[in-house]
Amino acid sequence: MKIETKKAFFDEPLYLESGRILQPFEVQYETYGELNTDKSNVIVITHALSGSHHCAGIYEGDRKAGWWDNLIGDHKAVDTTKYFVICMNNIGSCFGSTSPQSINPATNKPYRFKFPVLTISDIVKAQIRVLKSLDISNVEAIIGGSMGGMQALCYAIEYPTFAKHIIALATTAYTRPWAIAFNKVTIEAIRNDPDFKDGYYDPKDIEENGLNGLAIGRMAGHISYLSPSSMDDKFSRRYVHQDGLYELFGRFEVERYLEYNGYNFPKNFDPLSYLYIAKTMNIFNASRGSDTLAQSLYKIKSNLHLISFSGDMLFRSSEMEEIYNTMIEQNMTNVTYNEIQSDYGHDAFLVEVDKFKDQIVEILKG
Amino acid sequence: MKIETKKAFFDEPLYLESGRILQPFEVQYETYGELNTDKSNVIVITHALSGSHHCAGIYEGDRKAGWWDNLIGDHKAVDTTKYFVICMNNIGSCFGSTSPQSINPATNKPYRFKFPVLTISDIVKAQIRVLKSLDISNVEAIIGGSMGGMQALCYAIEYPTFAKHIIALATTAYTRPWAIAFNKVTIEAIRNDPDFKDGYYDPKDIEENGLNGLAIGRMAGHISYLSPSSMDDKFSRRYVHQDGLYELFGRFEVERYLEYNGYNFPKNFDPLSYLYIAKTMNIFNASRGSDTLAQSLYKIKSNLHLISFSGDMLFRSSEMEEIYNTMIEQNMTNVTYNEIQSDYGHDAFLVEVDKFKDQIVEILKG
Repeated sequence: MKIETKKAFFDEPLYLESGRILQPFEVQYETYGELNTDKSNVIVITHALSGSHHCAGIYEGDRKAGWWDNLIGDHKAVDTTKYFVICMNNIGSCFGSTSPQSINPATNKPYRFKFPVLTISDIVKAQIRVLKSLDISNVEAIIGGSMGGMQALCYAIEYPTFAKHIIALATTAYTRPWAIAFNKVTIEAIRNDPDFKDGYYDPKDIEENGLNGLAIGRMAGHISYLSPSSMDDKFSRRYVHQDGLYELFGRFEVERYLEYNGYNFPKNFDPLSYLYIAKTMNIFNASRGSDTLAQSLYKIKSNLHLISFSGDMLFRSSEMEEIYNTMIEQNMTNVTYNEIQSDYGHDAFLVEVDKFKDQIVEILKG
Repeated sequence: MKIETKKAFFDEPLYLESGRILQPFEVQYETYGELNTDKSNVIVITHALSGSHHCAGIYEGDRKAGWWDNLIGDHKAVDTTKYFVICMNNIGSCFGSTSPQSINPATNKPYRFKFPVLTISDIVKAQIRVLKSLDISNVEAIIGGSMGGMQALCYAIEYPTFAKHIIALATTAYTRPWAIAFNKVTIEAIRNDPDFKDGYYDPKDIEENGLNGLAIGRMAGHISYLSPSSMDDKFSRRYVHQDGLYELFGRFEVERYLEYNGYNFPKNFDPLSYLYIAKTMNIFNASRGSDTLAQSLYKIKSNLHLISFSGDMLFRSSEMEEIYNTMIEQNMTNVTYNEIQSDYGHDAFLVEVDKFKDQIVEILKG
């Protein structure tokens, strides 16, 4: 599989939903496979909160492959011998695209909290600019889960003829208070951490030493990605060590899991980026700009495929079912809905690929 | 209703499950109604994590009544014209009973982290001492929810003939990883807060200025007490103010709720107490000391009444059903189980009293 990692620069302004302008801006992206001559074999992958453009393949020296490597690759469900797959790092994120740590041309210093509030629409708008710069004006499919699914829905509504298929997994038309509440814990934990320095931290310090506030928020995040029963299966009441009076003094495996994933996270993820991205999810509302959700969804011309996971508590099946029902009630036939039985919680869209990859193959066959 | 708030002092040692000794120790408690001459009208109420001995009635000048005032009082379900009701502040808690802020006689300074690890058994053992000091050796009922339900189960197993009825609500025989994970967020948030000073904070500072770490942990706690659907009902996606570009910049009502409940909490609750009490819940395991849960439950001689709430995600109905099924499989007839339909999440045991008060009246009638 041919992998290329590139960066697109734009001097022209990006007009944001807030009324502000991002100029210049840049987008880091990665491509897999080869673009055919008539540019008709493009699939866009949109990534989630902590994801990046690196969704498949493995970099030299790395132990871990891209985050959706089980789905994307040569002769996999998203077959890179046939398709030219592109995944772009969302603006606001910290893997090479313009973010709060980028230089604000007005001050020649990092934006930090001067960075504009972004929305999912803004993120997609920047992606469209990248695709246009590659002379791609139509794609076979856009596939994304969680916040990536929000982007997929946004493409469907705001660029109705851009994609033949939209595949949105484990997502929602508008974020509910449960998800907003988990984000709130993280936001408060970051902002109250004195090492966050009201956003004026040195990113290198965080990379080296972490940031407890973000670590704690990430622990809460990991709870939201699982569920009571998925945690039962994964950890039960097992202790890390069973010696001495471990039943009174020992550490539970679930505690070790949260510590490990929590404290390592800030070394690879920028706290300001986290705040800005969490905000895009909180304020995502597919019906914004329309009177009703129905009106928004009525714009969709692509074939929309909704895939939910029964154990997902962050974006519940009922939320995706609402999208489906709203479209069916309007006699729209360009929508399918599949609820996959899974005990993995929200993480299912990443780990239960075997349960939906055949469906993706079928959809792409057309 | 006659209310008396008292404190019991004990110079004799309390032998703890850890092997350590608490000596001296004291227990703050409150009583409602009158003890009859043969002391046969006693009902014990056990409180939850953040609760106190003040479970009913209203103090002069207070706006809020005790935490189960909708259940307990003259002519209420737990009728204080008939029963002598007693609620004791758990040892380890911060409302007057011996806690990490008490003076360690070995050093003449507050225990802080030198305070021994407590278990639910230890808490109940201290309560039994109070009751014995009042010459009460049998009670009509023990009623508690959540961590109070753990205590009720502990009475049932460890003091099999002490109570005629045990009523345990919204609780579990052993804490599952989901609940342990939420506690973990709080524990890490407290410990990492520099104002916690590794436990050497001045409690007066916390009372005045709060403690962000505990506030953040409490926010996570409040998520665990609700559920996705109860949050939908309670908050939806409402904003605090709807003006200007509120959809991008506004604060959600759920955020205000978490801020309010989070940041106010540490002014009334000691962080070290929180750590010690969360630990008692994490390590609660009704089968400890037996080979199996069945063996533990087989000891129960009281009538055990289990009440769960369908929307409770912290201690799920399935957890209480397991207790019931385990007893039924052993042909025990001294157990009932009632799952109440509720969308209130774990908080239902506090707010949905109307749905179970008749059952409590029936149980107490015998």
